[in-house]
Amino acid sequence: MPTPTSIILDWGTSSLRAMLVSETGETLDTRESSNGGIQFVKDGAFEAALMQAVGEWFSAHGPLPVLATGMITSRNGWVEVPYVDTPGGVAELAAGTRKLTLQNGAVITFLPGMRDPAAKPFPDVMRGEETQIVGFGLDRDRTLVLPGTHSKWARIKAGRIDSFQTYATGEVFALLTKHSFIAKAQDPVPGAEPDWQSFGRGVEFAASNSAAADAFLSAIFSARTGVLDGRLKPENILDYVSGLIIGSEFRQARAAGWFKAGETIGIVGNNVLNSRYGRVAPLFDLTVEPGPDNAAKRGILLIAAEAAK
Amino acid sequence: MPTPTSIILDWGTSSLRAMLVSETGETLDTRESSNGGIQFVKDGAFEAALMQAVGEWFSAHGPLPVLATGMITSRNGWVEVPYVDTPGGVAELAAGTRKLTLQNGAVITFLPGMRDPAAKPFPDVMRGEETQIVGFGLDRDRTLVLPGTHSKWARIKAGRIDSFQTYATGEVFALLTKHSFIAKAQDPVPGAEPDWQSFGRGVEFAASNSAAADAFLSAIFSARTGVLDGRLKPENILDYVSGLIIGSEFRQARAAGWFKAGETIGIVGNNVLNSRYGRVAPLFDLTVEPGPDNAAKRGILLIAAEAAK
Repeated sequence: MPTPTSIILDWGTSSLRAMLVSETGETLDTRESSNGGIQFVKDGAFEAALMQAVGEWFSAHGPLPVLATGMITSRNGWVEVPYVDTPGGVAELAAGTRKLTLQNGAVITFLPGMRDPAAKPFPDVMRGEETQIVGFGLDRDRTLVLPGTHSKWARIKAGRIDSFQTYATGEVFALLTKHSFIAKAQDPVPGAEPDWQSFGRGVEFAASNSAAADAFLSAIFSARTGVLDGRLKPENILDYVSGLIIGSEFRQARAAGWFKAGETIGIVGNNVLNSRYGRVAPLFDLTVEPGPDNAAKRGILLIAAEAAK
Repeated sequence: MPTPTSIILDWGTSSLRAMLVSETGETLDTRESSNGGIQFVKDGAFEAALMQAVGEWFSAHGPLPVLATGMITSRNGWVEVPYVDTPGGVAELAAGTRKLTLQNGAVITFLPGMRDPAAKPFPDVMRGEETQIVGFGLDRDRTLVLPGTHSKWARIKAGRIDSFQTYATGEVFALLTKHSFIAKAQDPVPGAEPDWQSFGRGVEFAASNSAAADAFLSAIFSARTGVLDGRLKPENILDYVSGLIIGSEFRQARAAGWFKAGETIGIVGNNVLNSRYGRVAPLFDLTVEPGPDNAAKRGILLIAAEAAK
């Protein structure tokens, strides 16, 4: 087995995930605790919680450096790390880290999130996605999309993250399909493959030149009218709405200036949503370039290496 | 007491509301049954349910004509009445009614809903709002807005309802403020007056010339970033989001061609939302003309009178 050189923590509100990694970023071991999230840590006993999760790694390999991301760096976490403002790259993110020495002598480095002070109407924020963007690579000027519950569109410029914007796409999809008139009408087939034709119909409308597609609050009502009109089957509503909402994200991102037809954008991470985003992009005349699977880990190691200089 | 001349039913999925009215539309008596909705009526026993609700009116005043609207005219109701297509006015709606004679000799007239076959991506529908529009008055060409869970924007042209579009504004507001990241962050003050300043800040962004305001999926995330940035207090999120979402409805309706700056639009009904919509309109350079309080009843009587000719 390659020599372990560091421990990476993705320490969120509800869970703690730890990776034992080699110098080249190979993951040698993992620990995952579904009740290890910061909401379960009482009286600030974060060090004890950490030792419980990965203490045996320290015992086996000595006081390895620990690199921590996630809500552990927020106000409710162990060490609050201020956001680094855009534009910022590896150097700025490294300068924004905070360090703490554990009782066993290991140094834990807390990585900062990012803030775009120019975003409208209020500064936008991300915590974690910036490591994925760094891991994707900052060498070329381009726009990246990071699909998710709160998707990010980000612009890389001159080797730094220049600006970004959050789209609550995944969350709105979940709200509509779990709690709205759409939830009542749909008839999902559990475990079935997506119906790409229905998905495509949603995207096609979102990408069309119909002015009605600019009216998102109206477009979603088509999940009902399509069924009433016999053009949409209840078992296909979910995929139709998925296509419509992700397509609307692209339409809105275009309106907000994140891309123009004919460009190439990067898509970051290995989120299961990526295949859906990849299918939407061509309808907006975009070419998509996928990033590495382990973008977050690569980014964390790059920032930590710079911080250790 | 003026002589009762008809009974108007608003018979929905969950409740039945009945009004005893005079020739001039005065409401002389009402009955409301919260468990009288069509979902509670077993084996198609609609006539028995109706007699239970308003039988005493028949006993007292004879077999008055009954005018029925709501889901009672849908596939799951008593008599399914096909939608009348736009463009359509009083004559077309009257021609689309269906009649049934009750055992006591009273005639019940079921009023149709409306369908806009030109709507994109699928024909749009409404059931009930068309009576409010007729009651508002079809004499002048103009755009009307009907605030609600599923708001309608409608165009009156040449004495008929020319087209309309549904916006799921109220529903999206409820979803976001009850189930999303916004629900977790807000700190409502029960029973308090709306904070019009916070409401106004949401509207102002939606009405601004910022391209970011075209990105609805992103704009709603400002409910979080505003709090993170200390510019929005948890107790003001609800009113801010209300302004942002209703403002977005206007922005999207403008993009979809429902109005231009400088115009006058009508606002229909006496929905509690109307005061909010009335505050949004000026930021889009619109003048709002309110309709009569009893628009739905007026519309029903006009259509029924035409159908009785």
